[in-house]
Amino acid sequence: MPRPSDAAEIMQRLGELAACTETRGEITRLFLTPAHAQAISLVCGWMQQAGLSTRLDASGTLVGILPGPSQDAPVLLIGSHIDTVRNAGRYDGCLGIITAITLAARARTLSLPYAIEIRAFGDEEGVRFPVTLTGAHATAGNFNQTWLAARDHNDITLATALANFGLNPQALAENTCAAHRAFAYLEIHIEQGPVLEAANIPLGVVTAISGAARFEVTVTGRAGHAGTVPMSQRQDALTAAAAMILAIRDIARARPNVVATVGRLTVAPDATNVIPGTCQFTIDLRAPEDALRHQAEHAITAALHAVAHADNVALALRQTHEAAAVTCDPRLQTILAAAIEKSGLPIRHLPSGAGHDAMAIASLCPVGMLFVRCAGGVSHHPDESVMESDVEAALHVMTQTLQSLTPTDFAPGNPPA
Amino acid sequence: MPRPSDAAEIMQRLGELAACTETRGEITRLFLTPAHAQAISLVCGWMQQAGLSTRLDASGTLVGILPGPSQDAPVLLIGSHIDTVRNAGRYDGCLGIITAITLAARARTLSLPYAIEIRAFGDEEGVRFPVTLTGAHATAGNFNQTWLAARDHNDITLATALANFGLNPQALAENTCAAHRAFAYLEIHIEQGPVLEAANIPLGVVTAISGAARFEVTVTGRAGHAGTVPMSQRQDALTAAAAMILAIRDIARARPNVVATVGRLTVAPDATNVIPGTCQFTIDLRAPEDALRHQAEHAITAALHAVAHADNVALALRQTHEAAAVTCDPRLQTILAAAIEKSGLPIRHLPSGAGHDAMAIASLCPVGMLFVRCAGGVSHHPDESVMESDVEAALHVMTQTLQSLTPTDFAPGNPPA
Repeated sequence: MPRPSDAAEIMQRLGELAACTETRGEITRLFLTPAHAQAISLVCGWMQQAGLSTRLDASGTLVGILPGPSQDAPVLLIGSHIDTVRNAGRYDGCLGIITAITLAARARTLSLPYAIEIRAFGDEEGVRFPVTLTGAHATAGNFNQTWLAARDHNDITLATALANFGLNPQALAENTCAAHRAFAYLEIHIEQGPVLEAANIPLGVVTAISGAARFEVTVTGRAGHAGTVPMSQRQDALTAAAAMILAIRDIARARPNVVATVGRLTVAPDATNVIPGTCQFTIDLRAPEDALRHQAEHAITAALHAVAHADNVALALRQTHEAAAVTCDPRLQTILAAAIEKSGLPIRHLPSGAGHDAMAIASLCPVGMLFVRCAGGVSHHPDESVMESDVEAALHVMTQTLQSLTPTDFAPGNPPA
Repeated sequence: MPRPSDAAEIMQRLGELAACTETRGEITRLFLTPAHAQAISLVCGWMQQAGLSTRLDASGTLVGILPGPSQDAPVLLIGSHIDTVRNAGRYDGCLGIITAITLAARARTLSLPYAIEIRAFGDEEGVRFPVTLTGAHATAGNFNQTWLAARDHNDITLATALANFGLNPQALAENTCAAHRAFAYLEIHIEQGPVLEAANIPLGVVTAISGAARFEVTVTGRAGHAGTVPMSQRQDALTAAAAMILAIRDIARARPNVVATVGRLTVAPDATNVIPGTCQFTIDLRAPEDALRHQAEHAITAALHAVAHADNVALALRQTHEAAAVTCDPRLQTILAAAIEKSGLPIRHLPSGAGHDAMAIASLCPVGMLFVRCAGGVSHHPDESVMESDVEAALHVMTQTLQSLTPTDFAPGNPPA
């Protein structure tokens, strides 16, 4: 039997990794669970097979190391995560790690002027504890020790879960996990959106990870009898909310790469024959540049107040979340795009509307991301799907990228042009 | 102590009647409960005090009779209900009955050419059993014997509840309750809406009891990640529903006396960061003329399909309820309006968007309704409120109306002009 191609081997390993699950018949692998430990063990074996030395840091991040030409050689980090949401797909996060292992195996023959550390993070999804990106924050030296008190649904603290996993919470609190000598971070990840597929393009260069803001909106009108209150005398909270929802959509539509979503909505009293007196809904707003997002926020706020005034209802708008946008390093974008072009593929730049480990690493070093097309934009679902030929293309482009990287270009005091 | 005015006595009696309740501290008087029996006993006493003979029909309707000039004199029915919703106000239904008793007492001195039967119905609200207007349907000779099998929340059938109340379900099934020789039906009722108050007018002549249709609408788009799916590639069920809700509102607004309400709405998956894949909502549509309502229904259906097509979502629209409009007799409207004018009050015609016992009586004889202004349009709530001076005006107008009524004008073969 001939040896399978590298891409075929990656697809096969992703299938094996998918078997590490808490729940039979699905892929559910939450942070610091036995399924996570099983995944670490499997991935660790593949890292060692590729000639990497391995260690587990205090946050549960599996690190695979390909040494550089010297002890103090600069380090290229390549990372993603191996935890999953409940009933997940097999590619989210894992594709980046499994591909990186093959890439590191190839790198052994390339005499690169830097070391490579693959970082398989363990808490990108933030499903188990009310914290997220724990591993990536630890790698960046930004673990906040108050997070150790976070509790899961069984009331187990993060500190206890780490200790039960054989890790040292104190080391994590002291930020001993920080990656040293990192000059850049690269992440390969499925797009989790439909843009590349719609454009019929296998790979994309990520320009930025969008910043996000979330709001809770309460519209208060006046409940009334659906039969007896004439249309002209109504203060209908839901028709006002409907006008607001369309205004929010139109504001996002008018701004490139801005997305706005009303994902939750409730009506009270919620009876067929009663005019809604109250309507509550959420807004999730994202943009690849913070200035653009703030400008959209102002437009949304103004539009909502205008509707409330016109419809004679009260409006309460409360921000519940904010995360700044993270720009992917322009030099890394250029190198990735050049490698894609050299592979004969069309170049597509796009922002990432979803969050990634790269967000947390951005405070440590320049970050770059390569997106791989996925079927239907579906992610966080068993139907997640990626083509082997696209994985082959990603491997090819990343191999080229490794050869193009010059650590001194990323030295402090040598900012992006 | 001087004798209170008739209106003051009516207000006082409404207060006493409000004490007949299943639940202390509120007014809750469901059909065929001990609180209902207590109310019948109290009202029966007032009827007898007014010189009326009384009986309880097989449906639990208390009948107070003022004989006419002969045994076979035509009968004017004056009715409303003495059951309530849970935690009700004191005027809904009861105002019409208590006022009618005072009116009948006055009528004794007027030598009218007809008998009067006050009918205090016991199931207008339809709260206890999944049937409604039982008493009024029985008076109209339209009781459907299958209703006897209807069950309340304690699994007690209507037949058993009637028997426990000392009534004969079989007589009800055989429609022995039907009112004989009725030439017209009048009902005094609080408006339960804000129209008269907004116009600063105490009384209104009801033109029709609006017909109603209810629909359940399901909009199916495609759920997706709030961050990764560009606005241009979305099939957002909620933004489509929002456009539909505004279209429904605008269609009703454009048609006089048509009201349309979206009272319930749910979104799925109902997560802040997920584009809604499904949205379900209800439509309650009412109009005083069925042709007008059907025309609005067609416009709504067309508008919803147009939005679904434009927004690339699927639409399912299911009718769950339909009730025809009931026109109030034009001759009775004219007589009521003339009496209002004679009282020096402004005349206001308006449809009733809420249902009333008159709806069920309309198949028996011509019906007319006089609305009394209520505070803020509030009903089915402890805050329900009516002014004594408006009750005085209603008494005055109704006394005048009794004197203007000529039964032969309503004889079969003598239809409205």
